[in-house]
Amino acid sequence: MHLRKPILSALATLFAIGLALNAAQAQSDALPSWNDDAVKTAITGFVARVTTQGGPDFVPPEERIAVFDNDGTLWAEQPLYFQLLFAVDRIKALAPEHPEWKETQPFKAVIEGDVHALMAIGEKGLLQIVAVAHSGMTTEAFQKIVTDWITTAIHPRFKRPYTDLTYQPMRELLDYLRANDFKTFMVSGGGVEFMRAFAEKVYGIPPEQVVGSSGVTRFELQADGRPVLIKEAKVEFIDDGPGKPAGINRFIGRRPIFAFGNSDGDQQMLEWTAAGEGARFVGIVHHTDAEREYAYDRTSHVGKLDKALDEAIERGWTVVDMKQDWKKVFAFEPQ
Amino acid sequence: MHLRKPILSALATLFAIGLALNAAQAQSDALPSWNDDAVKTAITGFVARVTTQGGPDFVPPEERIAVFDNDGTLWAEQPLYFQLLFAVDRIKALAPEHPEWKETQPFKAVIEGDVHALMAIGEKGLLQIVAVAHSGMTTEAFQKIVTDWITTAIHPRFKRPYTDLTYQPMRELLDYLRANDFKTFMVSGGGVEFMRAFAEKVYGIPPEQVVGSSGVTRFELQADGRPVLIKEAKVEFIDDGPGKPAGINRFIGRRPIFAFGNSDGDQQMLEWTAAGEGARFVGIVHHTDAEREYAYDRTSHVGKLDKALDEAIERGWTVVDMKQDWKKVFAFEPQ
Repeated sequence: MHLRKPILSALATLFAIGLALNAAQAQSDALPSWNDDAVKTAITGFVARVTTQGGPDFVPPEERIAVFDNDGTLWAEQPLYFQLLFAVDRIKALAPEHPEWKETQPFKAVIEGDVHALMAIGEKGLLQIVAVAHSGMTTEAFQKIVTDWITTAIHPRFKRPYTDLTYQPMRELLDYLRANDFKTFMVSGGGVEFMRAFAEKVYGIPPEQVVGSSGVTRFELQADGRPVLIKEAKVEFIDDGPGKPAGINRFIGRRPIFAFGNSDGDQQMLEWTAAGEGARFVGIVHHTDAEREYAYDRTSHVGKLDKALDEAIERGWTVVDMKQDWKKVFAFEPQ
Repeated sequence: MHLRKPILSALATLFAIGLALNAAQAQSDALPSWNDDAVKTAITGFVARVTTQGGPDFVPPEERIAVFDNDGTLWAEQPLYFQLLFAVDRIKALAPEHPEWKETQPFKAVIEGDVHALMAIGEKGLLQIVAVAHSGMTTEAFQKIVTDWITTAIHPRFKRPYTDLTYQPMRELLDYLRANDFKTFMVSGGGVEFMRAFAEKVYGIPPEQVVGSSGVTRFELQADGRPVLIKEAKVEFIDDGPGKPAGINRFIGRRPIFAFGNSDGDQQMLEWTAAGEGARFVGIVHHTDAEREYAYDRTSHVGKLDKALDEAIERGWTVVDMKQDWKKVFAFEPQ
């Protein structure tokens, strides 16, 4: 007699979990570009657990924070980070006003399209290119420049706009999480104002849910009294590596329960997410498909995945094998 | 005959606006602590205009961004910013571990409760107190310290917890805006992690919608492999004055259509909001009620309102006269 109530309660919980699992299964049509394998089950199982009211892993909607790296996680990043390709195009567009660049590195390499020279210049030169391409204008002017570029520039291999190079399975995942009352954030090394120019349209992620690197902006009243923010060539914050948990803490102020990355630059964000109490999902996109996309990991100069891969294997994080787990990489692929 | 369609369409629009105004009027019960005067009408009229589908001032929900300063706008800030009072209590609590503070300013003044000496020390000393009180611990430990303080500390004049010193009319306004699909943000000079400890509970504003000043945090793996963020005694960002539009740009990434402040530190945020295209609401809380709260403006050492008041008058921004426009200041007042 004494046992009846606990047993009934346990049965009710199991029943609720069963219902939720069924619901999650029904919802798994929301992930049609994912093959029906262990990775997909890891995702849908996690979502079922944290959304099962009364279940042991239930998480209230306001705490369902999901964070995604962008380059290599939501869209491609080869042959170079797309924002770097934007900066290159911007330098070329500005070159006529700067005849001195013809003789000055790193601009000379950019103008001459000398990729090898550019790679040889290294990080310092690349940062210089980015700084010049992203400063000396108002925030509004910059947004227009990015919007114009993103709607017209073409990827060198796929001959399509860069926004076509977003991963269809990840876009489905974003929608699926939001349908389950998750709040989805981008947490990326890319520039916050660069990403905001397309994040809402392409990913359904509004500007206020984009966390990224940033430069200093200077408030200024123009001659007509109109206030503007001028973008300065001075780094304010680098949202990469250990900067990612710091950025999450500063912008979001809660620890995510779900995180996806693809490179060593995401390692600390993944560790930070995993270390929270309660159920956590930690995922890594492993680029294994040279045919449909690219294959690279431990030795890549872009999106290097080495230490984070070791840690993922050691800790049992979910590693997506693009070739195995994704039916489709891009929406434009023929069925 | 040619005129019929435009006229019908104009009538339909007027009818829609009429409906919306009626709806807004019905909703004005949502602001019971505001007297029925021009200020209240300015608020409800603005909300009616921007939410009237098909009307000339309609703003889609995702762009209905409303920003609020905290100190002096959402809660009181006298006799000193509450976060400073927190820092003072924190220094006192730490004093036994720092016997040298007995002889060192600014700590000596804090420990001895010498307000005059403290004020004489000026901004540099205050910043030192804040830095010490807010650093050298993990973000989690800090959150616990603030939560403990905010639930136990008592305001010197009102003998109540500081969260009771939030303005009832402004809390109603936050609810009213959210009921009309606005997204409400705090944009305050206060520390972002300090404010997040109570913003959701008290104002219904989630952590990710709190923008504030911040210190640098350092990511660290502890001996057991657990990652933590350590708060360092180094200022990262001051969200005050021209820092407010910069903070809005960086955290929110859209220009607000509605902004409320109370001091010269809010002036640039209000200018930035006002300068956007389309309908805007810009409001200032003017502290005019020494009896129910405090009366101060142009010469106050806390929450000085001088240049921004001139600009408000010149530009026709809405100035709330606390004494005139608010039926009630605090929820605890007798009816």
